[in-house]
Amino acid sequence: MEFIDGVKKKDTLDIHDILESGFEGEEIRINGAVHSIRDMGEVAFVILRKAQGLVQCVYEPGVTDFELHKLREESAVEVLGTVKKEERSPHGFEIRLKEIKVLSKPAEPLPVPVSKWKLNTSLETKLALRPVSLRNIRERARFRIQEGIVRGFREYLFCQGFTEIHTPKIVARGAEGGSNVFKLDYFGKRAELGQSPQFYKQAMAGVFDRVFETAPVFRAEKHNTTRHLNEYTSLDFEMAYIDSFEDIMAMETGVLQAIMALLKKDYKKELELLDVILPDVSKIPAVRFDRAKELVSEAYDRKIRNPYDLEPEEELLIGQYFKEKYGSDFVFVTHYPSKKRPFYAMEDPGDPRFTLSFDLLFKGLEVTTGGQRIHDYEMILNKLVKRGMDPADIESYLMIFKYGMPPHGGLGIGLERLTMRLLDEQNVRETALFPRDVTRLEP
Amino acid sequence: MEFIDGVKKKDTLDIHDILESGFEGEEIRINGAVHSIRDMGEVAFVILRKAQGLVQCVYEPGVTDFELHKLREESAVEVLGTVKKEERSPHGFEIRLKEIKVLSKPAEPLPVPVSKWKLNTSLETKLALRPVSLRNIRERARFRIQEGIVRGFREYLFCQGFTEIHTPKIVARGAEGGSNVFKLDYFGKRAELGQSPQFYKQAMAGVFDRVFETAPVFRAEKHNTTRHLNEYTSLDFEMAYIDSFEDIMAMETGVLQAIMALLKKDYKKELELLDVILPDVSKIPAVRFDRAKELVSEAYDRKIRNPYDLEPEEELLIGQYFKEKYGSDFVFVTHYPSKKRPFYAMEDPGDPRFTLSFDLLFKGLEVTTGGQRIHDYEMILNKLVKRGMDPADIESYLMIFKYGMPPHGGLGIGLERLTMRLLDEQNVRETALFPRDVTRLEP
Repeated sequence: MEFIDGVKKKDTLDIHDILESGFEGEEIRINGAVHSIRDMGEVAFVILRKAQGLVQCVYEPGVTDFELHKLREESAVEVLGTVKKEERSPHGFEIRLKEIKVLSKPAEPLPVPVSKWKLNTSLETKLALRPVSLRNIRERARFRIQEGIVRGFREYLFCQGFTEIHTPKIVARGAEGGSNVFKLDYFGKRAELGQSPQFYKQAMAGVFDRVFETAPVFRAEKHNTTRHLNEYTSLDFEMAYIDSFEDIMAMETGVLQAIMALLKKDYKKELELLDVILPDVSKIPAVRFDRAKELVSEAYDRKIRNPYDLEPEEELLIGQYFKEKYGSDFVFVTHYPSKKRPFYAMEDPGDPRFTLSFDLLFKGLEVTTGGQRIHDYEMILNKLVKRGMDPADIESYLMIFKYGMPPHGGLGIGLERLTMRLLDEQNVRETALFPRDVTRLEP
Repeated sequence: MEFIDGVKKKDTLDIHDILESGFEGEEIRINGAVHSIRDMGEVAFVILRKAQGLVQCVYEPGVTDFELHKLREESAVEVLGTVKKEERSPHGFEIRLKEIKVLSKPAEPLPVPVSKWKLNTSLETKLALRPVSLRNIRERARFRIQEGIVRGFREYLFCQGFTEIHTPKIVARGAEGGSNVFKLDYFGKRAELGQSPQFYKQAMAGVFDRVFETAPVFRAEKHNTTRHLNEYTSLDFEMAYIDSFEDIMAMETGVLQAIMALLKKDYKKELELLDVILPDVSKIPAVRFDRAKELVSEAYDRKIRNPYDLEPEEELLIGQYFKEKYGSDFVFVTHYPSKKRPFYAMEDPGDPRFTLSFDLLFKGLEVTTGGQRIHDYEMILNKLVKRGMDPADIESYLMIFKYGMPPHGGLGIGLERLTMRLLDEQNVRETALFPRDVTRLEP
């Protein structure tokens, strides 16, 4: 009987193996995709693309046992060669090729020059060719940074006593209501795709006190803007036994501090590739919604048109104001008007026209919505009735209040938006691997 | 201007604070849900439920400044009291209550006795009342263990150079084909919910060499069995530059070893609560599909009815055989027949009736399907045509092969099934927070 007992060390090395142990002058094996071939006559540079970066290999006729003209870009190869220090190479070494073994070959040359520093193609083309355009080093680096954001979010919350949960995305009713839901037939029943894990994470805050989820959410919004996606990754948490909704903002600030620290530590290479300067998140200003509107109106001589909502332009100006005045890329806008918040938002007991809720703006873009939730059964029933909603429709949600819920609140962070602002991208599609928008369902 | 600068230490303690620092004889504050009240006449025991476990508090008339009859189970409270060593209490201490502050109250008593050791209610009732039945300590412990599985999966793969990805769940076409897809209208276009991230993770293996995703997948299977869910969490990985499909099984074995080690280290309390004995995963036997059928046929005197498929009962017997013969709860069944595997499965060059693929059985239940994929453009086109499929339908997937893909393969692990077998549960619904099946869309 054959037994499998775990991962074995291969005889091919990785970039970090070479960086750690040198191997100067030694013969090694390494594999990768042929990212580019530059024939200089005397020699040729064959650049391999690996997960951790590029490796410069030197092809010399007579030395390398291979016919160069048979090598294709985007072939997968395993090479044998000698490691040599070379300061001008990526990672400070190159490999003098002795043998090249071709593991696979493309059928056609690439339709976009992925080995260029900048792709210089339209967003449309990049997205249409996403499965291959992401092979560009800088295109893909964005998603390493995105990985770091999610890791930082999870790792910090684990340390803060949160439990990770997995809640269903096919639901009877969306948490946010309204018309922007995707509907589907579920074995003859009307179902929807979850707009947020709101109801479930609240239920689980009654079970584990503190919970989080990193999962897709779905919004059938017909907006085709640079900041909307119809499916995105939401970083959600919900926490019980809060003293006030400031506890939630404090936790998010801690999350952001942890994310930036992790990026600085483990994603240095990608930050450099994309010239990203990490924002200072040591402290984040918090301003009331109505006060923010006034400040912007005064500072930029702008009339307040709608006292109950922030227009995208107003958000940008609030971002600008707090950058200019306090040097902060982030600002919490608090106490949103009740009529603009969902029924489960806790109203300010001092002034029920406003809620104990907040948005976090990052360079003038909303990247988080959060707040304290109603936890009292009577209070939520009254609110539902006042809004003309039928409690019977969400009975399984209301159950948690009927049988007791601690004071709690939470938030949802839009991962792609946070990544977009961090990387100073102008379109949220740049920071979604395979974006879904009104016209885009493939790839 | 107010600034938020991170999480502040509260004056309420957590269980681990007390376990770490003692506080014997000191007055402390702690909060939690009133899990149960046992009035003994002279004193009453008020058990608080917190994320990390239960805390025994002792109410004494005259000492505790509160009227006991006003206290309700499932109220959220903050108490002030003195810490006393008490070996018979959970965690070895109790709190002599001085003050009780009620933070919130339920409107009605619980419909299930969540404070009991065993809920002793039907699965139907438990699921209908899931948002509150999960407040039972043993019910919820399952999902802490599930968290540990996902953490172990991710942490091990990060160490192995994998990149985490987030791929869309609304897709033009499912990867597995067939009729078990949920369909939806996507702005006038026909769309489906992803049955697996197959196409996307393969594309990303061409970008990052090694990728993983932990996300929901959707299967519109009409089976209403103890092992099927219509939405489940799939732990997927895909890795390039494999030498053979055994590399994938080796990686999964490493994943399982990491998961068991993490559970042993960080989830000891939950394992004890549920009497879970972690399986030995130091080595896992691997047997060919056809050989496994023969072995079971011989050992249990059972006729082979369908040489191309494993019936659930046969899977159970294979599990039984390898447990009896080799003491292993796990067994890799390899070389599944080509006609039972999707078009993208790599056929065995030695015998194309079989594929370089495998299932992992855990106590006789399939918990993983994996294998090497075709990476050659011509080969996959031929396979598609042979199956009567139209390459134009999946052009954006085929793009990756046209422009070059390294040899690669991967797998998908059903999280709920793995948890179910680990906990020796008889129904997969027990290990899904809010299961979706043919009849269940709520809660």
